[in-house]
Amino acid sequence: MNPDILKERRNATFDVEKLTHILDGSPERTRRKREIETMVFNDPDFQEEDPNFLSRSERYDQAVRKSAQMIQKLREYGIADPDEILIYKSCVHPGRLEPLDLHLGMFLPTLLNQATPEQMDRFFMPAWNLEIIGTYAQTEMGHGTHLRGLETTATYDPATQEFVLNSPTISSIKWWAGGLGKTSNHAIVLAQLFSHGHSHGLHAFIVPIRHMSTHEPLPGIVVGDIGPKFGFSEVDNGFLKLENVRIPRENMLMKHAKVEPDGSYVKPASTKLTYGTMVFIRSLIVGQSALSLAKACTIVIRYSVVRHQSEIRAGEPEPQILDYQTQQYKLFPLLATAYAFKFVGQYMKATYNRIIGDISQGDLTELPELHAMSAGLKAFTTWSANSAIEVCRMSCGGHGYSCSSALPDIYVQFTPTCTYEGENTVMMLQTARYLLKSYRQVKAGQQLSGIVSYLNEHERVQPQPVSARPTVVDLNNLSSLAEVYKLRAAILVELAAKSIQQELQSRKSQEDAWNNSSIDLVRASDAHCHYIVVKLFTDKLGEIGDTAIHSVMSTLALLYALHGIKNNSGDFLQAGLLNVPQILQVSVRIKELLAQLRPNAVALVDAFDFPDNMLKSVLGRYDGNVYENLFEWARRSPLNRTEVHESFHKYLKPLRAKL
Amino acid sequence: MNPDILKERRNATFDVEKLTHILDGSPERTRRKREIETMVFNDPDFQEEDPNFLSRSERYDQAVRKSAQMIQKLREYGIADPDEILIYKSCVHPGRLEPLDLHLGMFLPTLLNQATPEQMDRFFMPAWNLEIIGTYAQTEMGHGTHLRGLETTATYDPATQEFVLNSPTISSIKWWAGGLGKTSNHAIVLAQLFSHGHSHGLHAFIVPIRHMSTHEPLPGIVVGDIGPKFGFSEVDNGFLKLENVRIPRENMLMKHAKVEPDGSYVKPASTKLTYGTMVFIRSLIVGQSALSLAKACTIVIRYSVVRHQSEIRAGEPEPQILDYQTQQYKLFPLLATAYAFKFVGQYMKATYNRIIGDISQGDLTELPELHAMSAGLKAFTTWSANSAIEVCRMSCGGHGYSCSSALPDIYVQFTPTCTYEGENTVMMLQTARYLLKSYRQVKAGQQLSGIVSYLNEHERVQPQPVSARPTVVDLNNLSSLAEVYKLRAAILVELAAKSIQQELQSRKSQEDAWNNSSIDLVRASDAHCHYIVVKLFTDKLGEIGDTAIHSVMSTLALLYALHGIKNNSGDFLQAGLLNVPQILQVSVRIKELLAQLRPNAVALVDAFDFPDNMLKSVLGRYDGNVYENLFEWARRSPLNRTEVHESFHKYLKPLRAKL
Repeated sequence: MNPDILKERRNATFDVEKLTHILDGSPERTRRKREIETMVFNDPDFQEEDPNFLSRSERYDQAVRKSAQMIQKLREYGIADPDEILIYKSCVHPGRLEPLDLHLGMFLPTLLNQATPEQMDRFFMPAWNLEIIGTYAQTEMGHGTHLRGLETTATYDPATQEFVLNSPTISSIKWWAGGLGKTSNHAIVLAQLFSHGHSHGLHAFIVPIRHMSTHEPLPGIVVGDIGPKFGFSEVDNGFLKLENVRIPRENMLMKHAKVEPDGSYVKPASTKLTYGTMVFIRSLIVGQSALSLAKACTIVIRYSVVRHQSEIRAGEPEPQILDYQTQQYKLFPLLATAYAFKFVGQYMKATYNRIIGDISQGDLTELPELHAMSAGLKAFTTWSANSAIEVCRMSCGGHGYSCSSALPDIYVQFTPTCTYEGENTVMMLQTARYLLKSYRQVKAGQQLSGIVSYLNEHERVQPQPVSARPTVVDLNNLSSLAEVYKLRAAILVELAAKSIQQELQSRKSQEDAWNNSSIDLVRASDAHCHYIVVKLFTDKLGEIGDTAIHSVMSTLALLYALHGIKNNSGDFLQAGLLNVPQILQVSVRIKELLAQLRPNAVALVDAFDFPDNMLKSVLGRYDGNVYENLFEWARRSPLNRTEVHESFHKYLKPLRAKL
Repeated sequence: MNPDILKERRNATFDVEKLTHILDGSPERTRRKREIETMVFNDPDFQEEDPNFLSRSERYDQAVRKSAQMIQKLREYGIADPDEILIYKSCVHPGRLEPLDLHLGMFLPTLLNQATPEQMDRFFMPAWNLEIIGTYAQTEMGHGTHLRGLETTATYDPATQEFVLNSPTISSIKWWAGGLGKTSNHAIVLAQLFSHGHSHGLHAFIVPIRHMSTHEPLPGIVVGDIGPKFGFSEVDNGFLKLENVRIPRENMLMKHAKVEPDGSYVKPASTKLTYGTMVFIRSLIVGQSALSLAKACTIVIRYSVVRHQSEIRAGEPEPQILDYQTQQYKLFPLLATAYAFKFVGQYMKATYNRIIGDISQGDLTELPELHAMSAGLKAFTTWSANSAIEVCRMSCGGHGYSCSSALPDIYVQFTPTCTYEGENTVMMLQTARYLLKSYRQVKAGQQLSGIVSYLNEHERVQPQPVSARPTVVDLNNLSSLAEVYKLRAAILVELAAKSIQQELQSRKSQEDAWNNSSIDLVRASDAHCHYIVVKLFTDKLGEIGDTAIHSVMSTLALLYALHGIKNNSGDFLQAGLLNVPQILQVSVRIKELLAQLRPNAVALVDAFDFPDNMLKSVLGRYDGNVYENLFEWARRSPLNRTEVHESFHKYLKPLRAKL
């Protein structure tokens, strides 16, 4: 063990293990998590070559091998709880998506939700046994966000009782679906349904795309890999071009809508239920923001106590770089953010589970609010974590650029969350739509409940001098800070509403008024989400009994809240929520909090409890023995397989004669 | 040509070609640039396989091949002007560094600057003819920023008149030098010189590392590639471990300092001159910030007029995504930034050339200011461009993640500029040191000249209500805005100075006071650099005669300045430089400027004049024919070489039987 990191651990003021239990949910969950981790990491079948040293085809090959083994072993060991499967999977493919993700995460669940009993009989067990490997082909080359714009067609032919599927244009080629390129032999294809010359909108169809035995593409199917990407090297994201592909009528997923043999169309009962799935996936993404940022923080903070550089005091040994105030100022607010997002993720999961119960009893009242909240929080947390991960990477200096740090990988694996499952700006505007609707309801005299109830009070938050405000802000009190965040959100919602109003007054249409106010709308959503995060972090503190942990968590929460105020000080000053001396005081307090957190920094990342096998980072090793392992890692670089690279003989040596 | 992009070009209000001339410096330069571009892009010897489809070893191989051909052709065609060589090189290796970069950019220049005439005879011509291929090995595994901390030793042995070089620890292994891993047979090694038991600090030594004919590592040399990185796949950044490696005394670069045969040491005359090189390299990096951001803007803005998505008005066709206000708000300030940095780069290059003249006549007075300015501006521009490139990438939606967009490559190639040639936070603190020194001089009654002369006026910028200020800010007047940026910088320098003072008053040492104020110091530097950029952009407008171009450039400059105020509104409010109604007005003005720039957006990126062969982006094609080419590109993905990937037969098919 590196002596620096040992010393850090001795300085901690709280019990790391207990904090891990809080993060995991209970001591029992921590125990079981570690049991599964040990199971995978000690299994020789899951040993892998470092993907950084492989070609893309080899990476894909290795991932398929491990996924196949994983499926087998999950059954063998009888692991069936969804949370446990996720843990197992995250050990088999640490931090990486894999070729079977869409089969497991979209194809099977879609069958469960949308297949008729007859379809379940035909497709589910073969899919469960990986005879059928499926994917979910929704986005097209020219269409992502706007589902109604999808161009793929499924035209019913009553003569043969078949659907004829087509990609009528280049831009209609299905694009991006994971596992579509090489792995899947079936795809659930989203297509515009036509019957008797009428369009009935988007529906889902099960389309066989490859031969069950030879795996060759079937007639009319043009399928392949969409090529290298920023990350995701293990996944064969694919394209699919359909040329008069015929499937039986019974391959349309018909649990809800139907096409009768004669071609007549039967509408689905309700469409609102699909909201639930979106909420669920977005809450998973919030959890992923926390997880990825926690990994990045673990790596950079451990490295920052091992790395010594430059000097603070002349003549003394080079200090640990975590002793520089600038380094603390870069990293500790991000550490606070990682904790904040952990708790937001926990809250969303719990709320989802609670509401799912209501939904199953037909009570959909809370769904719109949850849907709006999940959209905004997905955007808010992924944007924050995305830039934060890069700050962590760059705070490692040169070694942060080496793949051995794992930070480049963490970034490229994470950054797509800003775009998939709802592009972030679109998400922010969805939340804004809900906020504006709520605002108008208040204006019309309604009393709101739930998270937006603060809009009821909008009358009292007109910009005015701080002296005239009823609220006295205590910068050391989290509830008081949550309150100013709330008022800021209310004011920014009002500002966006006014912008729309002004546009309408200058004779713009509703739609143009919305577009011309969208900068303000995004800002309002952002402030709303920021408020929710501060509030949930504050609420969480109430659940923590252990005094030592409560104390360090309070410091983190305070730092999170004050740092957000500092970065958005214009909003708080502009609205008269804080005055200039208070803003100056915020900066002073932040410095104090940084110093206060310094001794606990390593313990706080240790509590995330990532085994080295999961982090896969030389810089983030638990034992802190960075340099010898960096050398060890480098020597395994494929370019070092031979002492002399062939290019010397091919190009450099012959050149001498010519010059 | 895609009709959308054609329409955009017709809407432009200015002559694109004339703006290109301004960016290039003159019509003649544009002409010559294009001549060289044609020369390279039409040369069959420089045809390449898309590196995205190659393994790392193949990428390295291809780069060596092209570099070797480049050297030959540059001589054949007699291209010797440094600017022209840079253009030629940027076409041969578009947007990518290559294995010979350090040979050309560091090894040869270091010989020129530090070798004795005898050493020039021995090394220069062989290096010029690529018999000797060299690199510059400075950073070590454990040491980057702090040169005095380097551990490699060169101990003089008078008995044999040799230096004995050693890497005494793991952390002292030379690390990161480009071309060191596989390409070079010599390295200039920075090492601590010892003679007669005395240490004489860092000096440079020419060390043969590989056999001239077999290219095998020499005895005592452990050399290799440091492994895969975030980008830079063409470069064999390397490690070098020295184990009692003996070189003749004459291999120490002795133009300045010397070791006599008996081991006595002769000091160099002055060390200040090396400042010049640093300034030069940092000014190049500022230019690179502009270039990389300009490329990213070109890609995303062209794509944003070709891409149609969602709806603004119900029932109408999907709009171009550049018609969304949120998209304009993301991109146009970045376009303005790219132009701003272009002009800053031009200014720095011109200033450097002017001062170099002074230096050669022994006049070093301007050097410290230029040195401080170049440090801060390097950090300011690379940080801005770094995050801006990612915003561009993510503004392309899903396709921004595909390597076909070229945006992932632009990012990974650019991001190291934030760390190399001076880590950015360290750079900001260097500038801060100069600002604080200047501030103290003013306090001591001195009158400053040059860019920091605004500190003379610090007395009048004490925080006070706006009403009491002499300055009336006109939000439509750039000089007036430059003035408030200046006052903001002055106030933040003062704030940092006060923080140091307070620390000292609570009995902290000078050094701890500095460290405990470093957040404020970085902020002051940042504000200082921001002011310089606004000022230089404003100054540049005075040089533009063409009315139409002047008009669109003024709009861009105004947007740059107002956007910066909006993002830092807290600073301006806090200091009483602007009041709340003005800040609200800034937001309104920004929206107007976005609408004003919209028709010129494509023309403004066309003016950067990147040929398609340079951009290498399917999304950024000049003709806008994105979709058909995206499909074309994807089909070339290596995973599509066979219809069925071997992993199907190896893992998936056998699995069926087992489940």
